[in-house]
Amino acid sequence: MGESEKHHADFTNFKTSNEKREILQQVIDSYSALVDGQTNWVCNLSNASSLIWHAYHSIPTNINWAGFYVLDPKDQDQLILGPFQGKVACQLIKFGKGVCGTAASTKLTQLVPDVEKFPGHIACDGGTQSEIVVPIIDKTGIVRGVLDIDCLDLNGFDETDKEFLEKLAQLIAETNDW
Amino acid sequence: MGESEKHHADFTNFKTSNEKREILQQVIDSYSALVDGQTNWVCNLSNASSLIWHAYHSIPTNINWAGFYVLDPKDQDQLILGPFQGKVACQLIKFGKGVCGTAASTKLTQLVPDVEKFPGHIACDGGTQSEIVVPIIDKTGIVRGVLDIDCLDLNGFDETDKEFLEKLAQLIAETNDW
Repeated sequence: MGESEKHHADFTNFKTSNEKREILQQVIDSYSALVDGQTNWVCNLSNASSLIWHAYHSIPTNINWAGFYVLDPKDQDQLILGPFQGKVACQLIKFGKGVCGTAASTKLTQLVPDVEKFPGHIACDGGTQSEIVVPIIDKTGIVRGVLDIDCLDLNGFDETDKEFLEKLAQLIAETNDW
Repeated sequence: MGESEKHHADFTNFKTSNEKREILQQVIDSYSALVDGQTNWVCNLSNASSLIWHAYHSIPTNINWAGFYVLDPKDQDQLILGPFQGKVACQLIKFGKGVCGTAASTKLTQLVPDVEKFPGHIACDGGTQSEIVVPIIDKTGIVRGVLDIDCLDLNGFDETDKEFLEKLAQLIAETNDW
């Protein structure tokens, strides 16, 4: 492959001078390009995790985890760890438990400026201080999983993150065979 | 959760003063502990990617990608991207093509000191200079996927990596429902 040709890895090149809105739009556009013709959710969520990880580090937001929990095929009232980037994570989360379980059971994005103040917060990483979790809801209304991003600082995420990550989660819901 | 309690993320703490053999043994031991009672391959390969990524960076080996390709359920003569850590990657690899496809078709570890010299090398990331790919073979002899690690330096991997990663791949083959 020639030097001038685009490699898949180049999708994770984000300019640090961009505005957050531009960077998050680039995540959405890159995800759309990558999943064109591909509906395998493991493949697509793996690349999505990489896009999100590199995008947030270029904003820069000091994230320490970006990835997915999905419905556990063995227990539909439980989430199981899916593809992610970052440190080793908890494997199982019951619906209604912690930030991820609450996003799944309420079908609402959880924007948490300080995880210590969230009742029943599950600490996979003691360094996490803030978090955003967006449910992935298919067209029949079933929660297929959640998109979870953790930050080492307080107030890591705001309404702009919520807006773009909800668009991304909707796109993820629509572009995969679950 | 108390400060003194172990978090899942702590599994990715590797001491940089350790020998490579000790660090790679720690990956195997941590993987075994994490998958105890859990046979979901997406969950387990996601955490395995994280362990491998953090272990190699602590050796330190300058790796830029660590993860898995698995059998494509839609085409058993093809690998599809699985969980990984690093930059966005190629989604599909035919058996016999590139380093990953060769490991899958020959059922043999590919230890590649210089990817430019490997016939038909598939460049997902133009920065990769060396690579090791270990097939994951179940007890019936079927290749379920490959473990792939890329390095930004030449000669990133040696016989020690091969020895421990083959042990890990065997453990991965045995501990998951495919």
